[in-house]
Amino acid sequence: MGPGPSDVHPRVLKAMSTPLIGHLDPEFVEIMNEIKEMTQQTFQTKNHLTFVVSAPGSAGMETCLVNLLEPGDEAIICIHGVFGGRMTDIAERCGAKVTRVEADWGTPIDPAQVQVALNHVKKPKMVAIVHAETSTGVLQPLEEISEMARNAGALMVVDAVTSYCGTDLKVDEWGIDAIYSGTQKCLSAPPGLSPVSFSQKAVHVLEHRKTKVQSWFLDLSLVRNYWAGAKRAYHHTAPVSAMFALREALQLVLEEGLENRFNRHRNQHELLKDGLISLGFEFLVDKEFRLPMLNAVKVPDGVDEALVRRRLLEEYNIEIGGGLGKFAGSLWRIGLMGESATSNHVNMLLSALKTIL
Amino acid sequence: MGPGPSDVHPRVLKAMSTPLIGHLDPEFVEIMNEIKEMTQQTFQTKNHLTFVVSAPGSAGMETCLVNLLEPGDEAIICIHGVFGGRMTDIAERCGAKVTRVEADWGTPIDPAQVQVALNHVKKPKMVAIVHAETSTGVLQPLEEISEMARNAGALMVVDAVTSYCGTDLKVDEWGIDAIYSGTQKCLSAPPGLSPVSFSQKAVHVLEHRKTKVQSWFLDLSLVRNYWAGAKRAYHHTAPVSAMFALREALQLVLEEGLENRFNRHRNQHELLKDGLISLGFEFLVDKEFRLPMLNAVKVPDGVDEALVRRRLLEEYNIEIGGGLGKFAGSLWRIGLMGESATSNHVNMLLSALKTIL
Repeated sequence: MGPGPSDVHPRVLKAMSTPLIGHLDPEFVEIMNEIKEMTQQTFQTKNHLTFVVSAPGSAGMETCLVNLLEPGDEAIICIHGVFGGRMTDIAERCGAKVTRVEADWGTPIDPAQVQVALNHVKKPKMVAIVHAETSTGVLQPLEEISEMARNAGALMVVDAVTSYCGTDLKVDEWGIDAIYSGTQKCLSAPPGLSPVSFSQKAVHVLEHRKTKVQSWFLDLSLVRNYWAGAKRAYHHTAPVSAMFALREALQLVLEEGLENRFNRHRNQHELLKDGLISLGFEFLVDKEFRLPMLNAVKVPDGVDEALVRRRLLEEYNIEIGGGLGKFAGSLWRIGLMGESATSNHVNMLLSALKTIL
Repeated sequence: MGPGPSDVHPRVLKAMSTPLIGHLDPEFVEIMNEIKEMTQQTFQTKNHLTFVVSAPGSAGMETCLVNLLEPGDEAIICIHGVFGGRMTDIAERCGAKVTRVEADWGTPIDPAQVQVALNHVKKPKMVAIVHAETSTGVLQPLEEISEMARNAGALMVVDAVTSYCGTDLKVDEWGIDAIYSGTQKCLSAPPGLSPVSFSQKAVHVLEHRKTKVQSWFLDLSLVRNYWAGAKRAYHHTAPVSAMFALREALQLVLEEGLENRFNRHRNQHELLKDGLISLGFEFLVDKEFRLPMLNAVKVPDGVDEALVRRRLLEEYNIEIGGGLGKFAGSLWRIGLMGESATSNHVNMLLSALKTIL
């Protein structure tokens, strides 16, 4: 019940322990096709360039930025937590000129400030923003900002690591050009892979680069031939077992249905919220912008936060997350993600907290 | 029986399907420590900076190059197959000036040519070379070249993706400064991770860089704090299940013993070689430089190579590899790696080939 990895369904564990096959085996290529199709469905997109990076979510972040940015490009990056800061770091390593739009940690980015930045920047290549800030528990509304980016001729790049498969996320309808996620949050597959999708507009930018992508491993002009080329050219050896697990996890999501899954996350969040409030906890984030799957609550005064987390882990086998960055020591982050978003999880945690506190 | 992934021991599959724990859980940190120690043993090194990249072997390659090269650096890269070429591509993306030392595919690099290059290049930062060229089946002797690099003040960087845990590889004794491998070859774990080790000399170079590493995800100045820092600072979410599998696979290697494992690979290679020669096959590589775990044989005249490989797969459930690069269509690559290096594998393949041909 931390910020991920979440619990994994036994069917996913079983699929993962299937004996290996080759990464160019026709049967494996078929599995890649199924994964691609289910990733499109869960991202609610028809993007042809939808695939999975063979590395964790932060490599997905780097994939989106290194493929779309070239030295001298101007990028507007929104920062309202740790992961916006990480995007800035990567964009600067790409040689981009970054304009920061910031909000206090625990609040969302104000679209008006994005518009100010768009007005100031000469030729904005992208607006990048985190949909669900795992470090603060904020759900960032995207549609207004996406429209502003589009009107300014900029790409809309979204971090959906924590929101994907846990709350509504309409890649096509919301005009998102590049998006990445992770597998270990609301999708409930083991960590290690990053689903990614690029719009036609983003593909056009990729295809008209003046310079080579600085990373060979993440260069989509190469990777796409393995995922979507007619001949499936060898690029790197795909993590076969992790892909078996991913396929099964995606199937579980679609069997449940996206809407049902989003509702389940919301309902369990309500149950947890009521329990925490009756125990005297305060949420960091205003109700309107609270993430259902990542509940950020202030550590009560006088409580030894590390000790309580250790007791939860050792006596109750429950993991919750501490604060990141400026919230280290003062915040708890309680995950309700995928298989971990059940009433039993909520009740176990509330009972344990009540006893310990 | 292709160029990897190899078969995986049931104990490894079982370990991989253990329910998840958090990537910062004290129990998982302990598992990372065990993996580090066993990786040191299998690399035959005491290097403190020994760890595992959370992505496949080609990301390990990129890790070594992006952390050690800065724009303008001079690198000597040896090319005797596909993977030397890939190193060149990555080094150039780092802004390095590359001097190529080449050998005909199927033969090893001549140390004298490396010396010529070292004499020509003003300030060589590294000599990079592939120990076991998976595309040609050549085992490259390393000690002489390593000494030349050391005398010239250059780092010795080695690709050990296919040799690791299958043939002798003495990182410390041979003076290797940076080395990377994969998990899906002679180690017989699923693909997706890359064991890496840096010498003190390489760490010194890393610590005295003038520029930031161009990849955030692979930046060892950050990654090392997660693997070896006193506080285990969060960098990215480690692929927990894959690490469970890796630990078990490393344990199996050490239970067998490195020498025994190397002998087993050599013995199975001898058995396969005798069988293939009696079927009329010719090896690409001279006996002295043949890899035991990757047997490159010429496709006999008049044989439809793709059809035979398809029949092997469909009728016998045996995968062998086709040729890469300039050998596409004219070479077969037969792997005897880790759990796939057994007499049963050899006999099955020889019998099937005899029947089909």
